[in-house]
Amino acid sequence: GIFSKVINHLNRAGASIVSIDFPSGLYADKSSKGNEIIEADHTLTFQERKLAFLMAENERFAGKVVVLDIGLSRDFHEKENSKLELVDESIVASIFQPRKEFSNKGDYGYACLMAGSYGMMGAAILSARACLRSGVGKLTCYTCKEGYAIMQTAVPEAMCKISGTTFIKDVRNLKDFSAVGIGPGIGQHPSHRELLKKIFAEFDKPLVIDADGLNTLSKYPSLYGSIPANSIITPHPKEFERLFGKSSDDFGRMELAMQKAKALHIYIVLKGHHTFIATPEGKGYFNNTGNSGMATAGSGDVLTGILTSLLAQKYSSLHSCIIGVYLHGLAGDIAAMTVSKEAMIAGDIISHLGEAFLSFERISSTR
Amino acid sequence: GIFSKVINHLNRAGASIVSIDFPSGLYADKSSKGNEIIEADHTLTFQERKLAFLMAENERFAGKVVVLDIGLSRDFHEKENSKLELVDESIVASIFQPRKEFSNKGDYGYACLMAGSYGMMGAAILSARACLRSGVGKLTCYTCKEGYAIMQTAVPEAMCKISGTTFIKDVRNLKDFSAVGIGPGIGQHPSHRELLKKIFAEFDKPLVIDADGLNTLSKYPSLYGSIPANSIITPHPKEFERLFGKSSDDFGRMELAMQKAKALHIYIVLKGHHTFIATPEGKGYFNNTGNSGMATAGSGDVLTGILTSLLAQKYSSLHSCIIGVYLHGLAGDIAAMTVSKEAMIAGDIISHLGEAFLSFERISSTR
Amino acid sequence: GIFSKVINHLNRAGASIVSIDFPSGLYADKSSKGNEIIEADHTLTFQERKLAFLMAENERFAGKVVVLDIGLSRDFHEKENSKLELVDESIVASIFQPRKEFSNKGDYGYACLMAGSYGMMGAAILSARACLRSGVGKLTCYTCKEGYAIMQTAVPEAMCKISGTTFIKDVRNLKDFSAVGIGPGIGQHPSHRELLKKIFAEFDKPLVIDADGLNTLSKYPSLYGSIPANSIITPHPKEFERLFGKSSDDFGRMELAMQKAKALHIYIVLKGHHTFIATPEGKGYFNNTGNSGMATAGSGDVLTGILTSLLAQKYSSLHSCIIGVYLHGLAGDIAAMTVSKEAMIAGDIISHLGEAFLSFERISSTR
Amino acid sequence: GIFSKVINHLNRAGASIVSIDFPSGLYADKSSKGNEIIEADHTLTFQERKLAFLMAENERFAGKVVVLDIGLSRDFHEKENSKLELVDESIVASIFQPRKEFSNKGDYGYACLMAGSYGMMGAAILSARACLRSGVGKLTCYTCKEGYAIMQTAVPEAMCKISGTTFIKDVRNLKDFSAVGIGPGIGQHPSHRELLKKIFAEFDKPLVIDADGLNTLSKYPSLYGSIPANSIITPHPKEFERLFGKSSDDFGRMELAMQKAKALHIYIVLKGHHTFIATPEGKGYFNNTGNSGMATAGSGDVLTGILTSLLAQKYSSLHSCIIGVYLHGLAGDIAAMTVSKEAMIAGDIISHLGEAFLSFERISSTR
Repeated sequence: GIFSKVINHLNRAGASIVSIDFPSGLYADKSSKGNEIIEADHTLTFQERKLAFLMAENERFAGKVVVLDIGLSRDFHEKENSKLELVDESIVASIFQPRKEFSNKGDYGYACLMAGSYGMMGAAILSARACLRSGVGKLTCYTCKEGYAIMQTAVPEAMCKISGTTFIKDVRNLKDFSAVGIGPGIGQHPSHRELLKKIFAEFDKPLVIDADGLNTLSKYPSLYGSIPANSIITPHPKEFERLFGKSSDDFGRMELAMQKAKALHIYIVLKGHHTFIATPEGKGYFNNTGNSGMATAGSGDVLTGILTSLLAQKYSSLHSCIIGVYLHGLAGDIAAMTVSKEAMIAGDIISHLGEAFLSFERISSTR
Repeated sequence: GIFSKVINHLNRAGASIVSIDFPSGLYADKSSKGNEIIEADHTLTFQERKLAFLMAENERFAGKVVVLDIGLSRDFHEKENSKLELVDESIVASIFQPRKEFSNKGDYGYACLMAGSYGMMGAAILSARACLRSGVGKLTCYTCKEGYAIMQTAVPEAMCKISGTTFIKDVRNLKDFSAVGIGPGIGQHPSHRELLKKIFAEFDKPLVIDADGLNTLSKYPSLYGSIPANSIITPHPKEFERLFGKSSDDFGRMELAMQKAKALHIYIVLKGHHTFIATPEGKGYFNNTGNSGMATAGSGDVLTGILTSLLAQKYSSLHSCIIGVYLHGLAGDIAAMTVSKEAMIAGDIISHLGEAFLSFERISSTR
Repeated sequence: GIFSKVINHLNRAGASIVSIDFPSGLYADKSSKGNEIIEADHTLTFQERKLAFLMAENERFAGKVVVLDIGLSRDFHEKENSKLELVDESIVASIFQPRKEFSNKGDYGYACLMAGSYGMMGAAILSARACLRSGVGKLTCYTCKEGYAIMQTAVPEAMCKISGTTFIKDVRNLKDFSAVGIGPGIGQHPSHRELLKKIFAEFDKPLVIDADGLNTLSKYPSLYGSIPANSIITPHPKEFERLFGKSSDDFGRMELAMQKAKALHIYIVLKGHHTFIATPEGKGYFNNTGNSGMATAGSGDVLTGILTSLLAQKYSSLHSCIIGVYLHGLAGDIAAMTVSKEAMIAGDIISHLGEAFLSFERISSTR
Repeated sequence: GIFSKVINHLNRAGASIVSIDFPSGLYADKSSKGNEIIEADHTLTFQERKLAFLMAENERFAGKVVVLDIGLSRDFHEKENSKLELVDESIVASIFQPRKEFSNKGDYGYACLMAGSYGMMGAAILSARACLRSGVGKLTCYTCKEGYAIMQTAVPEAMCKISGTTFIKDVRNLKDFSAVGIGPGIGQHPSHRELLKKIFAEFDKPLVIDADGLNTLSKYPSLYGSIPANSIITPHPKEFERLFGKSSDDFGRMELAMQKAKALHIYIVLKGHHTFIATPEGKGYFNNTGNSGMATAGSGDVLTGILTSLLAQKYSSLHSCIIGVYLHGLAGDIAAMTVSKEAMIAGDIISHLGEAFLSFERISSTR
């Protein structure tokens, strides 16, 4: 009653609002929908970024969030066995595997991307370039005839296999590959149902499924059960909804993702500002890199390329997700400093993967 | 009589001339055609750049213009309700909207460019690249079959729709788009009359019309009245003349632009050194960025891409014009410092949009 | 007798030789063929670079040449009315025209390049890019059908006209253009005789003719007389020989070039380390920029693009030659510092035209 | 017995191990397979890198190897007439030939690369770009029809000859070329047997043979004897095995390479971390540049381009191998500092060839 009125009054006062620890009215770990909540310009919170601040629905309440270190014991945090974790540099450094000096390209795997269709070849170019720039030894792209010359000119380091004229019809000899990614720009065609079925049946390692791969999948829920174990799917919120239905709020969607990851034994990378990784073991990871400049066409295709590359290099699905999403965001953050958030295009993320990896090398060499 | 002779004598004396405030014989706010006027090498003028100095026809009289701050009250200037304004950094900073952290590509709109034809695909490439580098979430290019592979290779971040073999024949489902730009490199074909008609009828938001879009339009004045309200047209002086007829001088053309903007309820961006924006509300804005290196093929196509991108991001037509023209010129100014005015090509303007946006971010974060 | 023996002995001694002013046995201004000449590692010469040091045939005698300023009056040099001149920065600065602020692309001309054929489209790409990066307002490339998509993808700023399938068959409406360059990569085909004839008859301004344009020309000497006055031809020594026959030595070739330039009223740019410009007025200019890294495929195509661009901007043929050759070499010198002489490719010269023009701007603004 | 147990115990202790001079149990100059060997994290060795440390099979025993200079007489090393040598900067500097000032592109040779097939055109692009960026005067690429537009767009500095639709069918007029490289991305087709036969018969100078060129060759051992003398083949370990059979260990493979180089009178470049060059004179050279980031698709194609370029410039086969392999690795090392080992793609090696050559120029100018 009275609190609600005070909050309402403050929000309308037009003054700049700074919340300490939490904006009044906002719940820390569940949706605050329906509450009357302070709309702060800045929130100074203590020790660590709370769950509520990672949810898009709360952006207008929390404003810019600054985390103040108040000296709480780090042990306490580490002992707490939370099922949710915020990925930071030290986690990434503990996973990252530097290359061995005497290695050859065979040691870094052979990736396959099925991507592109008539008018949407850019998705194939972007995912292929990102895959190559994430350490894979060798890459073949399956695409359609109308994409052949485009791919070979734009991504000379990738080999090309062709099936179909304006969209991918078929694929073969999947067992040659260490990892397979499917989806960027493939369009939606009835024959893709059979294509997915075949891939699910023939490829016995984890897949990366994105974009139109997910859109096709969402039309045939009977296929869900045959997705190879430990596969990674990378839906944005709308694709997630098509796959698994509506959620009442961001917290609900997070819970649904964790539930589905467990049920289907897959990794779900729910893309957004703090991209969320739901694992079949019942854990969830929020990413802490990236920025709004990455809200641009092709940004997701780049992530698909990165994840497929990491899987091919024998990172586990969990490690691929954690490193891949972090790397993608870090490269985007470096790009934003160079070309601005507004001018950033997806290709810029790829261009800065090198600097992101250099920072991985630095971190892991000082551990 | 005697003044005229003195002026004539001075101009022929071969000495270097510096005018104080104004070259003798030059009117401040109307055309000075027919006058005997001092041809200064430099003009030191007081407090602000006068209208006469923004007109191409006066370049040889004013020479290099330097504005001296003589401490006149800034209030005075701001209270004056002039219908003409010189756009500066503070105006741009007040309009520019930084991106929200939790946003996704849907928040930045879905643009459509109709551009390119056989032999003129570069215009499509340049406008598409500029559009993507100006913050839009997603872009589709309509072009002709002979431009398909070219576009997909050169601009992978843009999707492609095809209609017609050597030029664009038709477009569909315009309502999917947040903003539509038409004109760069489309050529002039009789069927374009019907194309424009259809677009004007089906698209109910403001359009950006440029180049051959305007050339076709100028052949069918009966279409003028059906241009969607608040559309932006971007003629250079010759295209302006084809559309609205000759003017006696630069001042006359400025007045004509303001009159036509009002009558047709559109924004007219009259391109030139100080590009002039005439608004349907009867105001005029002169731009204050840009340089002669931008007098190069494709420079206008870049502007079309930028304006379409800004409209798609829900900037108003007025704000799109002010920011877009300023940004275009600023990127060109940064390019000139890097590659020189002579060597500058239109693609260089695009390459430096990032730095221009970074300066926007800096300005708006310190306000 | 005895001198010859001494020289011979010294050359075989294996010691390092430094010549003062001139290696013994070398003539300053005529060929020294047949002489017994000191083969110096270094030559320290006085006040200025002598003619002999500009000739390839003398490289092994002079070694590295260093010019020592011994304080001779500069006036003396300037009063001397030599028909031969070494182009330096001050000559270039006196010719270079900075762009006018209120100019538009029409002020910088409309160039046409006829270039490329099946398998040799790179020559067209390189000359077109160089032309655009040298200040022209607008450019159209005539090429063959097999080069269409290549050109539009690689050089979006240039428009394309097509005639013929694997080589250029015909051209039209030449009068639209301010300047025309012909030759890079066009191949040699019988029908090119008629093509040259038509161009010579229809285009009444100076042409730039290079490469296979010259090779075709050399087969039909009857066409020499109809080359438009003040045209520029740019043969390397072998092409020069095909056109005008053998010379006994480098001095003889220089004289022959000056004689032919006068007789045909054309400018002959004889390419080499110190490229030589022979003018119809009977003067000769040696260039003083450039390096051996430019001895690479496509380097000449770049020069053709630059010269055509300058002609289109209304530089005279003489000024186009002097500035163009200097600029080409200067950009190559900057490239050599960045990518080395060995790794330099023709595209690198184009990439550094901007820096070369920036140095022109600096020089001319301090005059 | 007891040593073996101690070693085994130490290896399992989990502590960090530093070996002095040599890890216990490791032989200096023969394979240690079957031995119980200390698995050091670091080895501090004296005066120079021993043979054992250059073999991949010993990486896990030696760990990071650091060479300590203990002041042994350099003379001693130079007098020792070893058949094996580690290539360093001073060897390269003594071979490298700076360009002559008055040279023209004819002085740097005319190379030919036969490369590319349907879906593998990237190999042709990469080898062609590397060839051009290694100093050759002129380059023609033989490829198939499906690769034509791709090559001309991506590598404008190279000319193109076409034979066959999806793979190279035939070649002609080989005598026009100063050097010929064959193999990158050509695929394996029955008709290639005849192609190789023809090339071996018609081209009388050394060839560079790589990749699918070697794979085809390995199917027809009867052709081995007709490889032109002093040709260079560049197998990776698997291709080497296909050609010459299995070896028991890395030392055995080295010996086999030296034996085959002698028997066939060819140079064998056995690619790996310390690439090994076996010569027909019975000597072997280990390279000392390069890193694990170069274990990526297309890295070998780049080397083929470099070697063909150097042969065309009249470096001997031995010198081409020594300089080419060193240069390739050095460019890769510079790339690793800029873009990281993980993000490195083959094109990055090419991009940094210029800096590698600049360091050659520096070294050779201070000698």
